[in-house]
Amino acid sequence: MCQLLGMNANTPTDVCFSFAGLARRADEHKDGFGIAFFEDRGLRTFVDHHSARVSPVAELVKRYPIKSDNVIAHIRKATQGRVALENTHPFVRELWGRYWVFAHNGDLKRFEPRLHAAFRPVGDTDSERAFCWLMQELAKAHASVPSVAELSATLAELLPTLGAHGSFNALLSNGQALWAHASTHLHWLVRQHPFRAATLADEDLSVDFASLTQPSDRIAIVATQPLTADEPWVAMAPGELRAFVAGVPAPPSPG
Amino acid sequence: MCQLLGMNANTPTDVCFSFAGLARRADEHKDGFGIAFFEDRGLRTFVDHHSARVSPVAELVKRYPIKSDNVIAHIRKATQGRVALENTHPFVRELWGRYWVFAHNGDLKRFEPRLHAAFRPVGDTDSERAFCWLMQELAKAHASVPSVAELSATLAELLPTLGAHGSFNALLSNGQALWAHASTHLHWLVRQHPFRAATLADEDLSVDFASLTQPSDRIAIVATQPLTADEPWVAMAPGELRAFVAGVPAPPSPG
Repeated sequence: MCQLLGMNANTPTDVCFSFAGLARRADEHKDGFGIAFFEDRGLRTFVDHHSARVSPVAELVKRYPIKSDNVIAHIRKATQGRVALENTHPFVRELWGRYWVFAHNGDLKRFEPRLHAAFRPVGDTDSERAFCWLMQELAKAHASVPSVAELSATLAELLPTLGAHGSFNALLSNGQALWAHASTHLHWLVRQHPFRAATLADEDLSVDFASLTQPSDRIAIVATQPLTADEPWVAMAPGELRAFVAGVPAPPSPG
Repeated sequence: MCQLLGMNANTPTDVCFSFAGLARRADEHKDGFGIAFFEDRGLRTFVDHHSARVSPVAELVKRYPIKSDNVIAHIRKATQGRVALENTHPFVRELWGRYWVFAHNGDLKRFEPRLHAAFRPVGDTDSERAFCWLMQELAKAHASVPSVAELSATLAELLPTLGAHGSFNALLSNGQALWAHASTHLHWLVRQHPFRAATLADEDLSVDFASLTQPSDRIAIVATQPLTADEPWVAMAPGELRAFVAGVPAPPSPG
C-alpha cells in the first residue's frame, strides 16, 4: 500500500518533520516518491523513482525547509503501472489558471472512463486516469474556479463513481484548499495553539512545535497512518470527503 | 536578459557540466531558475525563486547526475511578472497524453491573445501567455501527437505571430524532440564521436567527454550564449526554428 501525506496551513509551513516520518516508511514502499509544494499560486514538485530512503532528492526535501501552505506527498508501492517517472505521484494539471495536484493510495479495478476532453494520462496508472477524469468532470461542472464549498459539493457527487471501482484514498489541492477522501485508511490532525512536542511513531525523532510556531498558526496534517505517537489523530470514515482550508477542517461531505 | 539551456540526446545524458556553466551566469540573473528533465515520457522539474548561484535546489541539480534525453533549463532576470514561483520557467502543460515544457528569453509587448481553450496562465508573465497560446493552437491544428516534422511545420506557421510582438528566443520539448526558436541570441552545438575535452567559458572547469561517452552517443546542446570556450558553437539566425531529435539537428524551418 502506498502512503499519503497532506498539509494545509494558514501560514507557510515546512513539512521536514512529517516528511522524515513518511520517508521512514519507504522500506516497504520503494517504488518512488513525490512531493508537491504550493507557494501561493506557484507550485514545485520533487519526484524520484528511487525510494525516499535513499533518493538524493528526498534528502534535499528533508533538509531544505520549503515553506508552503499546501503540500501533497506520496511514497509508492506499485500496484498498477510500471515503476517509471511518469507513474510517480503526485500528478499535476492546470485548470482555470490554477495548478491541481493529486495523489492516490488504493487500487481501482476496471476503471476505464471516456476521456474526451483536455486531460489525458501520460503514464499508465489507474490513479492518473482517475485524476484526469476528475479534472474533466470538474471542468464540465464549473466555468471558472468555484468556491471551496462548491468544489466540495461537486467532488462529493463525483467520488462515489471512483469508489465503486475499488479503494480510493486520495488527496487533491489547488493551492486554496486540501481535499482528502478516505476509503480505507486516512487520518488527520490539527496542530494549533497551545503547541506541544511530538514524537514520530517510527523513529526516535521529536520536535517541539511550541518553539517553531506563532500562537496564530494552524496546521492540518493528513496521513495514511498517524505519523506521531503522541497526538490526537482522527480516523476518517469510509467514503468521507473533507476539505481543509487555512488549517481548519470543514464538516465532512458525504462522498 | 534570461539565459536558456536545452539538451537533446540519443541516449540518457546528464547536464551537470552545462548546468554548472549556466548557473555561473546567475549573478546577473538572480530572479529564480528552473530545469526540466524528460526521462522517456516522464518529467521532473526543479524550480526555485532563488538564484542558481545559491539555491540548494540548484546545488542538487549540479551534483545529482540525472540522465535525461531532453532537458530545458532557464535562469531568470525578470522583465515582466513578479519574482514568484508561478512566474519561474520552464512552464509545463499536458497535451495529447504528453508533457510539454517551455522556456522563453525575450520580451513580448502587447501580446494578449484570446485564450478560449484548455490552457490558461497561472502566473502573469508574457512567456506563460505565449506558451498557453502555442498549446491552444497546436491542439487545434492536430488531433493527436503528430510527427516531429508536422509539429515543426505548425510551429513555423505560429511563431511569426509571437515574433511580431518582440524578442522570442524559446525552447520547447515534448520528450520526443527539442525545438529551438531564435530571435536575437541562441547557439547550438552537437557533441559526437570523436569526443574531446571542453572548458567552460566562464569558469576554470573542464570535462573530457571522451572518458564519459560511448562512440555512438550524440548530444545536441542549445544555449543563449556559447557555454564553452573551445567548441564550434553555431549561431542561429533571427527567425530560425530548428528541431533536434536524438542529438541531430533537422534542417531549419522558416519561423
